[in-house]
Amino acid sequence: MESGVNREIRLAARPVGFPKDSDFELAETPIPEPADGEILVRNVYISVDPYMRSRMNDTKSYVPSFQIGEPMTGGAVGQVLESRHDAVSRGDWVNTMMGWREYYVADGSAVMKIDPGLAPVQKALGVLGLTGWTAYVGLLDLGRPKQGETVFVSAACGAVGSVVGQIAKLKGCRVVGSAGSAEKVAKARSEFGYDEAFNYKEETPAEALDRLCPEGIDVYFENVGGDHLAAALPRMNTFGRIALCGMVSQYNDTEVRPGPSWVPLLTNRLSVRGFIISDHFDRLPDFLRDMGAWIREGKIRDEETVVAGIENAPTAFMGLLRGENRGKMLVKVGPDAPVEA
Amino acid sequence: MESGVNREIRLAARPVGFPKDSDFELAETPIPEPADGEILVRNVYISVDPYMRSRMNDTKSYVPSFQIGEPMTGGAVGQVLESRHDAVSRGDWVNTMMGWREYYVADGSAVMKIDPGLAPVQKALGVLGLTGWTAYVGLLDLGRPKQGETVFVSAACGAVGSVVGQIAKLKGCRVVGSAGSAEKVAKARSEFGYDEAFNYKEETPAEALDRLCPEGIDVYFENVGGDHLAAALPRMNTFGRIALCGMVSQYNDTEVRPGPSWVPLLTNRLSVRGFIISDHFDRLPDFLRDMGAWIREGKIRDEETVVAGIENAPTAFMGLLRGENRGKMLVKVGPDAPVEA
Repeated sequence: MESGVNREIRLAARPVGFPKDSDFELAETPIPEPADGEILVRNVYISVDPYMRSRMNDTKSYVPSFQIGEPMTGGAVGQVLESRHDAVSRGDWVNTMMGWREYYVADGSAVMKIDPGLAPVQKALGVLGLTGWTAYVGLLDLGRPKQGETVFVSAACGAVGSVVGQIAKLKGCRVVGSAGSAEKVAKARSEFGYDEAFNYKEETPAEALDRLCPEGIDVYFENVGGDHLAAALPRMNTFGRIALCGMVSQYNDTEVRPGPSWVPLLTNRLSVRGFIISDHFDRLPDFLRDMGAWIREGKIRDEETVVAGIENAPTAFMGLLRGENRGKMLVKVGPDAPVEA
Repeated sequence: MESGVNREIRLAARPVGFPKDSDFELAETPIPEPADGEILVRNVYISVDPYMRSRMNDTKSYVPSFQIGEPMTGGAVGQVLESRHDAVSRGDWVNTMMGWREYYVADGSAVMKIDPGLAPVQKALGVLGLTGWTAYVGLLDLGRPKQGETVFVSAACGAVGSVVGQIAKLKGCRVVGSAGSAEKVAKARSEFGYDEAFNYKEETPAEALDRLCPEGIDVYFENVGGDHLAAALPRMNTFGRIALCGMVSQYNDTEVRPGPSWVPLLTNRLSVRGFIISDHFDRLPDFLRDMGAWIREGKIRDEETVVAGIENAPTAFMGLLRGENRGKMLVKVGPDAPVEA
């Protein structure tokens, strides 16, 4: 039995606009004890993701709001310290939504085991997890790119965008991306295979798309919203498709921001689909099969930024919202040394 | 051989905002003579439709712009006066896009014959033609209504909207519509079977939808745009579908009008499809089979407003844009008396 202290991050206040340190609280609790059928897990990596910003608000969204005074949740990979469930053993690695904390107890039948021999365990939070799966479904099922088409990806080097760009190249598309620094623009081309990329802090998306997509856009994978969306929409080709994955530039808005005119949707017969990946579980086996193969064959690269310590999770999250991450943003909250079975 | 004068309406100037009389010109030309393989047709009914407003602009759209000094075009039903094509006979009724004129010559293989025994010939411009087909494809293929769902139709009594509402009722939906007068609101319920309807000149769409769709909207068939769209979008249920057929309230805009925030598209995982019916020829046989049966069985009612005389076509068109029509707006440009074969 473990004894000691668990640390967790709680929502202290609902942010107005961009979150600040005082919206989060680091709290200590006793490490809980598993009952029959339960397991005790020590997290090693927790995920911070843009969608969490909307969960901090008290508004209707696709996932329930975080509650003030309660620990936040999110993707997490950890190792089982103690099991009172027949199907789970001490030392197993599990992937759950019990992030933002160091230790937790869960029903042993409610966790997904991961195989640490396939890839580093934290990949289950990124390219082999929600972010890669989001890229796969959003691009292939909603964007439906055809060989030779032009695909535009906002946040081209983000955890999702970097995978979208690479899959689009695998499908024979011309791929254009946006990013927020010269370094990221260079990386989009050199690491992730984008044909073209631009720095939206140096050039407006409208100017850049006129320059880089002179024949229009067939598929827009949208992570950003705001002026990216306003620029892309009237530049979509007939029968273009928009996979609406995120609008991170708008998550800290304190007022409802108008969108672009819908006239191009009609005149160019566009399709727009907002989506979240948990609606697409039917595609998980296909994703794991294809992405597993692409990674083994060296066809998909990924990148991660790791911040150490649960106490730094709010800083990591706010840095993510400012675009300071490189690829998947993770917080390492547990030790490297594995638990012996 | 016919001899005499053809009258036609030409685009005289590109409208700025709402069209005015001087944007149109009534011109006379000699009745043309058919060459080998051609036919001479006398139009009897011509169609005026909201989409024609965008063709008067010199902007990229789904159909080419009308050219200044040239006759306008659009749906028309007429009778063959003279045929030099083996497959077409004098007296045949044909449906073409050669509207806004009294007489024309066409390639005999480029016209669609209609059977005057099935229904009054002008129905081929309405419930059995483009407008009914638009309602059918937009609602069933893009809206995909399920029994018990709530369908909202803007312009509920329009040529398209009145058919959408009736098909939605045939599919077991709860149907709510908007219209621009108390008379139309009453007719939506009594004639077209809407469960609820409201007068958007008396009550904002937002207030009305809160009142009439307390459990949200599953399918929105959009003909209007503007404040209708802004009100409907945040009231769509999860996985809601928007069939974007038209935005007549915006066609006379002289500046690009912002749209509503896209946040609901993401949080509620909505689908939006802009469409025009000519992209959906594969569904024409199904439409003709189903709609023919519904009309024969008395399950679909339609309504038409007929203005007499080609010289009044611009007035009819402008009246349509102001919502003065009841159902399908037609202009009768030829005689009742049929041509003898």
